[in-house]
Amino acid sequence: MALHFTSEKRLDDGVLEREFTLGDIPGILWTPASAPAPLILLGHPPLGLHKMYPRLAARARSAAAEGFAAATIELPGSGDRPRWAAAEQARADLRRAMEAGEPVSDEIIDALILPLVDKAVPEWQAALDALLPLPEIGGPVGYSGGVISIGIRLAVVEPRIVAAGFFAGSFVPRAMFEEARQVTIPLHVLLQWDDEGNDRQAALDLFDAFGSKEKTLNANMGGHTGVPQYAGDPAARFFTRHLK
Amino acid sequence: MALHFTSEKRLDDGVLEREFTLGDIPGILWTPASAPAPLILLGHPPLGLHKMYPRLAARARSAAAEGFAAATIELPGSGDRPRWAAAEQARADLRRAMEAGEPVSDEIIDALILPLVDKAVPEWQAALDALLPLPEIGGPVGYSGGVISIGIRLAVVEPRIVAAGFFAGSFVPRAMFEEARQVTIPLHVLLQWDDEGNDRQAALDLFDAFGSKEKTLNANMGGHTGVPQYAGDPAARFFTRHLK
Repeated sequence: MALHFTSEKRLDDGVLEREFTLGDIPGILWTPASAPAPLILLGHPPLGLHKMYPRLAARARSAAAEGFAAATIELPGSGDRPRWAAAEQARADLRRAMEAGEPVSDEIIDALILPLVDKAVPEWQAALDALLPLPEIGGPVGYSGGVISIGIRLAVVEPRIVAAGFFAGSFVPRAMFEEARQVTIPLHVLLQWDDEGNDRQAALDLFDAFGSKEKTLNANMGGHTGVPQYAGDPAARFFTRHLK
Repeated sequence: MALHFTSEKRLDDGVLEREFTLGDIPGILWTPASAPAPLILLGHPPLGLHKMYPRLAARARSAAAEGFAAATIELPGSGDRPRWAAAEQARADLRRAMEAGEPVSDEIIDALILPLVDKAVPEWQAALDALLPLPEIGGPVGYSGGVISIGIRLAVVEPRIVAAGFFAGSFVPRAMFEEARQVTIPLHVLLQWDDEGNDRQAALDLFDAFGSKEKTLNANMGGHTGVPQYAGDPAARFFTRHLK
């Protein structure tokens, strides 16, 4: 897919922020002044790049301060990208179950996540194909955050990704536990211990399932969105250990 | 109890290492060139100070490099300190259960740990009484490692300790889970995920029980004695956040 830069902005800390399109997929690339820099792919929840921009830009600037480039692309079915009926149905079923205070069934989770993984992963791989030849990018690739199932699949199928930081805070289809056993790259997993919307035992089971010889679970308090700032230090050091 | 320094040695990194006796309890104090420095109490398993010396000295030198003093004392019933019959019996029962591949009963764990906690905690408090007036020591106190039940009790009863780093790798009497709920100071808990001699679920339950609003679980691979070197970074930063 063809990469076209559509805007360019120099942030006050010297980071170059460029919006791009990859075919019809919007994305953003941040590169630090020091180039070439190893690339970290920034995953995010399916809420749309526009809504996620402030948090993504903050993560990208932190990464740039450590000497990393960062990139992200819109997820299928999010932002201005076309919806598909099955995903809309799954989101509606999820909302209904949560509003009724019912447990979210495996069927809903599968319908919500598995097609998203199947569609998104080749797009992130296409983004790597397009971004890695840029002269500002060099070295191994990391993946960080977002829908953990997308990260798991990428860690299994994409050999250019050599280390991944996951956030254990989203629904995980049972089938992904099998894929988790096939992950062998170093992992840094964040868990919000008191995240009431998250199944803690499932997160611990998933961490246990990862086949990686090097894996760290970093669990903190503060609720779903309250990851403490100090949790960023070991995550940054994790990527520095593995991408530099 | 009276503090007497019995030996003094300047290590090659400028750290001053002094052996002392506190009444009839042997101990070691390490102070960095930068004084006054906040103190970290170094806990250790009941294997005797002499046997533990290399690991304790390494931890003390790491602490000194971050600007901390460190101190430790011999545990009751360890090293050259007098044994007591009930503890010897509990150790023998533990050995027998482990050699027979039997589960270690609550009775054995209680007999092994609870008297040790009852005896050790006032001694560590006496060590604080004796060490804190020294001009080389200043500021809040941290406790790090060792028999986690001793650390829990200290965190509950000793207000001079404002932050604690625990290693979730030893037997914990059920009664200590109740005390854990009373702990409110910030905690940094290390867990070796693949520690086969440790009950992982009990360690997770204990982490959950801690009443602290700020608590971090840092779980890694590498077996009981294989805490990876990079796990030291966030532990050091934890103490720097809370003691400086």
